[in-house]
Amino acid sequence: MQHFDSDYMEGAHPLILQRLAEINLDKNPGYGGDVYCAAARRKIREACGCPEAEVHFLAGGTQANAVVIGALLRPYEGVIAASTGHISVHEAGAIEAGGHKVLTLPQKHGKLCAAEVRRLIETFERDGNRAHMVKPGMVYLSHPTEYGALYSAQELREISAVCREYKIPLYLDGARLGYGLAARETDVTLRLIAGLCDVFYIGGTKVGALFGEAVVFSRPELADHFFTIVKQKGALLAKGWLLGVQFDVLFSDGLYLSIAGHAIDMAEKLKAGLREKGCRFYYESPTNQQFIVLENSRMEELAREISFSFWEALDENHTVVRLATSWATREEDVDRLLCLL
Amino acid sequence: MQHFDSDYMEGAHPLILQRLAEINLDKNPGYGGDVYCAAARRKIREACGCPEAEVHFLAGGTQANAVVIGALLRPYEGVIAASTGHISVHEAGAIEAGGHKVLTLPQKHGKLCAAEVRRLIETFERDGNRAHMVKPGMVYLSHPTEYGALYSAQELREISAVCREYKIPLYLDGARLGYGLAARETDVTLRLIAGLCDVFYIGGTKVGALFGEAVVFSRPELADHFFTIVKQKGALLAKGWLLGVQFDVLFSDGLYLSIAGHAIDMAEKLKAGLREKGCRFYYESPTNQQFIVLENSRMEELAREISFSFWEALDENHTVVRLATSWATREEDVDRLLCLL
Amino acid sequence: MQHFDSDYMEGAHPLILQRLAEINLDKNPGYGGDVYCAAARRKIREACGCPEAEVHFLAGGTQANAVVIGALLRPYEGVIAASTGHISVHEAGAIEAGGHKVLTLPQKHGKLCAAEVRRLIETFERDGNRAHMVKPGMVYLSHPTEYGALYSAQELREISAVCREYKIPLYLDGARLGYGLAARETDVTLRLIAGLCDVFYIGGTKVGALFGEAVVFSRPELADHFFTIVKQKGALLAKGWLLGVQFDVLFSDGLYLSIAGHAIDMAEKLKAGLREKGCRFYYESPTNQQFIVLENSRMEELAREISFSFWEALDENHTVVRLATSWATREEDVDRLLCLL
Amino acid sequence: MQHFDSDYMEGAHPLILQRLAEINLDKNPGYGGDVYCAAARRKIREACGCPEAEVHFLAGGTQANAVVIGALLRPYEGVIAASTGHISVHEAGAIEAGGHKVLTLPQKHGKLCAAEVRRLIETFERDGNRAHMVKPGMVYLSHPTEYGALYSAQELREISAVCREYKIPLYLDGARLGYGLAARETDVTLRLIAGLCDVFYIGGTKVGALFGEAVVFSRPELADHFFTIVKQKGALLAKGWLLGVQFDVLFSDGLYLSIAGHAIDMAEKLKAGLREKGCRFYYESPTNQQFIVLENSRMEELAREISFSFWEALDENHTVVRLATSWATREEDVDRLLCLL
Repeated sequence: MQHFDSDYMEGAHPLILQRLAEINLDKNPGYGGDVYCAAARRKIREACGCPEAEVHFLAGGTQANAVVIGALLRPYEGVIAASTGHISVHEAGAIEAGGHKVLTLPQKHGKLCAAEVRRLIETFERDGNRAHMVKPGMVYLSHPTEYGALYSAQELREISAVCREYKIPLYLDGARLGYGLAARETDVTLRLIAGLCDVFYIGGTKVGALFGEAVVFSRPELADHFFTIVKQKGALLAKGWLLGVQFDVLFSDGLYLSIAGHAIDMAEKLKAGLREKGCRFYYESPTNQQFIVLENSRMEELAREISFSFWEALDENHTVVRLATSWATREEDVDRLLCLL
Repeated sequence: MQHFDSDYMEGAHPLILQRLAEINLDKNPGYGGDVYCAAARRKIREACGCPEAEVHFLAGGTQANAVVIGALLRPYEGVIAASTGHISVHEAGAIEAGGHKVLTLPQKHGKLCAAEVRRLIETFERDGNRAHMVKPGMVYLSHPTEYGALYSAQELREISAVCREYKIPLYLDGARLGYGLAARETDVTLRLIAGLCDVFYIGGTKVGALFGEAVVFSRPELADHFFTIVKQKGALLAKGWLLGVQFDVLFSDGLYLSIAGHAIDMAEKLKAGLREKGCRFYYESPTNQQFIVLENSRMEELAREISFSFWEALDENHTVVRLATSWATREEDVDRLLCLL
Repeated sequence: MQHFDSDYMEGAHPLILQRLAEINLDKNPGYGGDVYCAAARRKIREACGCPEAEVHFLAGGTQANAVVIGALLRPYEGVIAASTGHISVHEAGAIEAGGHKVLTLPQKHGKLCAAEVRRLIETFERDGNRAHMVKPGMVYLSHPTEYGALYSAQELREISAVCREYKIPLYLDGARLGYGLAARETDVTLRLIAGLCDVFYIGGTKVGALFGEAVVFSRPELADHFFTIVKQKGALLAKGWLLGVQFDVLFSDGLYLSIAGHAIDMAEKLKAGLREKGCRFYYESPTNQQFIVLENSRMEELAREISFSFWEALDENHTVVRLATSWATREEDVDRLLCLL
Repeated sequence: MQHFDSDYMEGAHPLILQRLAEINLDKNPGYGGDVYCAAARRKIREACGCPEAEVHFLAGGTQANAVVIGALLRPYEGVIAASTGHISVHEAGAIEAGGHKVLTLPQKHGKLCAAEVRRLIETFERDGNRAHMVKPGMVYLSHPTEYGALYSAQELREISAVCREYKIPLYLDGARLGYGLAARETDVTLRLIAGLCDVFYIGGTKVGALFGEAVVFSRPELADHFFTIVKQKGALLAKGWLLGVQFDVLFSDGLYLSIAGHAIDMAEKLKAGLREKGCRFYYESPTNQQFIVLENSRMEELAREISFSFWEALDENHTVVRLATSWATREEDVDRLLCLL
């Protein structure tokens, strides 16, 4: 069976495991007050070109979203997100459980556009009943999106400009950020993101770490009492250095980008092969998630030898499925997959 | 200035004020344990044909919605509502502040349809990722809707059937229930509602009371510890008898329906007059809220002498405005309004 | 049966009912945007000597506490209160339901002391683990307390000084504020309270109103988006003018204090009579709530003719009961009560 | 510097790291649907003598407490805990953030007693105002306690009997459960705990795992929709097998108890040595946490060479400090520590 279900099926990059083994019996203080967290913070700040940034390490993406959004919003505010955003659909109501509405907007391949964001905010501001309504208090983006799509630098700049005009923070969910940064045609860099967003997270779980996400507040004043909020949400890891070590390794010698680049290479090889075979793409994804359209009978046949993610029914006879590569995908597995198709 | 802004601009029906004055210096036990609440409960149960119903009195509609929905949903559940539902738009995120997502559906004049409700539930049930998603745990209707529209008995039966098939409670927001029951062509009665819904509230604030809504659990087992939940939400009135007296009067001698009928008469007179003058209706509303389309210049002109509610911009040159009658509308005011138009 | 159970057994002062009747069929805008609320706000600001104060009207005390405390605290903060405070014991967990811990302190007749408040805050500040703990973010007092006791001006000054030193707001629950202000020996005035507290409420429900409490922010910057928070908590009355009218009447011609003074007169008469009969007091209450100790057999006997509140078991053979006077207590009822004892 | 600060200063038992390395590049399904979680569940059920138990793996103790308590309580309920309980003091208000009050009781070395639990419940049941109060809906114990103390089998039986009499679940926080089970004189076994508690967790973070706690529902019907609740709280690890592997290793060949036994041996050696040197114990702790009383000047001197946890000031001149051993403590480190003292 060839597994292309998701990008979180393997453990960690070997260098991370090796480092964890080396320091395994060392004694470290808890809760992120250790030397590895300190080193990782320093390297991340540098990579972001943001020497003042406040960096916190959390265990997972839904957790990061719930903690950050809960920390930033006031009780009367909600968060603007794409209707397909992870927080809108696949976090079991975590944002609402924290007391806040997700204000959804139409999307394209998971992307918001600045004009729609502006329209929502302005419609709210002009509404005579707005004091009876949830105030848009934040914008949530995912980059890459849940559909593997990428914002251009220009698109991000426009959304950021709307946020700054209306003084609401811009938050970027970077669960797969590495795969976005390493994509072939993108003009979005980590520094650009740090400059345009107020807070974002750099995904580790899907990009080489055992688990872990690095939350970066480029505007550190937004991180007020964040440590305690993390604790309150049950999100504070006792052995915080486990997260520090992983990000220290990932942000040494460009590892994060280089392993993400490998996933992109594998995805491009896969795309080329699929195109050659006349496979129908759902849309042109530039990152490690590829979405193809299969006839249902063909899909069932393939499912015996390849495991992939069911994405959505396109029509009665066709289904969109996802094939994901990752930092751990081997070239021979892509070859075998292409053989099977 | 003629006021047709809303149906909650006046105090209470004079019989209610009179009764409040009569018993003003009597001594009553607090928190609804008084004889007036008891009498009102008895009369409401009878009017509903539901001798087992549990009845609680609350002060307002948003409060009733937040308390009831919060009491019935489990943490992992959300409530299905029309995208224009009061809980979806105009309660400042009260449902989300209680921890629950509002799962919105398209609507027609504020109405849900059974097929859409079924589709949402079945799509959820079939989704392989449903354990990562908010479970539809309740259906919320308003009758009349925020647009003054009414469900037919058949439509309610179909929605109720879907709810019962999937074992999720059906909740009806009756902020303007009287105006729905007294409409000229409806086949929906209070007994039918009590039979098809699991919980609903009978609006007093907009239909003759100073303030107050009667929450009726036709399935009393859903009201487990409801008193304490009401207290916890800050919704327990110390002098509960104030609510009991009002509903006791409203449910004596058919007062509730008869005063609602007056509002409908006034609305019908208004409709007829408007139609005669060639006025354009947004749609044919059968209840006390009438929605008409005005040219913007005409609207501004009228606004000097008539006060109404801005509803929504229809296009660049036209606006939908609402004119509302109530139990307290005087015929001469309608005449004067028609004169002005 | 003589009723001395509580101070919320009757309706409203007749002047209030009369005023409500006079304007009953007038048309008022909703949600507090009416002339009565405006007038009441102006009079309250004046009575408080606080021309900048922001004043909001709510329906009840638990509601006021939950809304105010929820609005002022940040997610990582809790509220300091006496272990017997209404929010600590008798609000069904309303504060916790809003996400915040009540940090309880020992009390005397329901009163906190500044030294204890300081100790709690300083102990927190010195605790090496404080980032894992709930931060004291507010102090809650009731005046009179749940036991009818009063702070002296000096005691309030000291508590206020601690709050200001540590920059946390001081909130005073004035459910029975009138009875405190009208007590015979107090040196605490409304102006003093407005000067020392950051937010407080003036109780109407127990002091002459049908229902209603006036929340006064002497530091108006704390009331940020308070209207929307009120709406979200289901606490916004559609016919807000009902509250405005009541407080307008209560704050005209010194009515609030004069009717409270009557309750105090009745309580003093009751005290004198009880003392004469050798009755044992639980403690010397200066306000409208009197606490006496009865032998259990005597208590049962009296309960046939007088209704009072069971307060607490003192020992196996004795019980503390509460007798409450109010603005509505008639002198002949006190006489009859004393006869019966 | 000799480190005896805490029992979570090292990584994982070498067998765990080795196993993680072996399977690092295998492909596993996410969210706990893997073979390692399945194996760990099977072994834990067996060790608990509870073939029907439902087992879920979470990342940390505060998270386990917040998720379990939030899942089990109804909105109107609170959880009974010792005033020193971890949930009462050191979880930054996580339980309250989830909407529930912690109902605290006095304790001895962190232990509750059945009689106090019964008294709290019965006092509530007898209180005429109980419908205005938080209902005790659950009992929380820690075993060992935060002070390293252990319940006897008889004490647990009595508390469990009270819980069953009043039909409220008993939850045991086993952050350091291994060290309790391996203590020299205890008569409490894992099977006994599974039989007496309704839900409990077996701590991994402090007993040999990198991180992770195994939540065991001995009454599986209490785990209704627990997976979704875990997701909603941001507590669902994408790579759930990381937790499964760790507990699979810990529950193979008795590893969990044997490594905990080593920590106990080290603690006993430390105790014997300290006693020999005339050291004053705060109390006789039977587990891996030892509490000793030091003169302040002596404490400062020692702090240059030994790192320990400040626990509390005993009086002006003496301080209680904690020395903790763990599965990773080396005998030579204890020797060196004793030398230094």
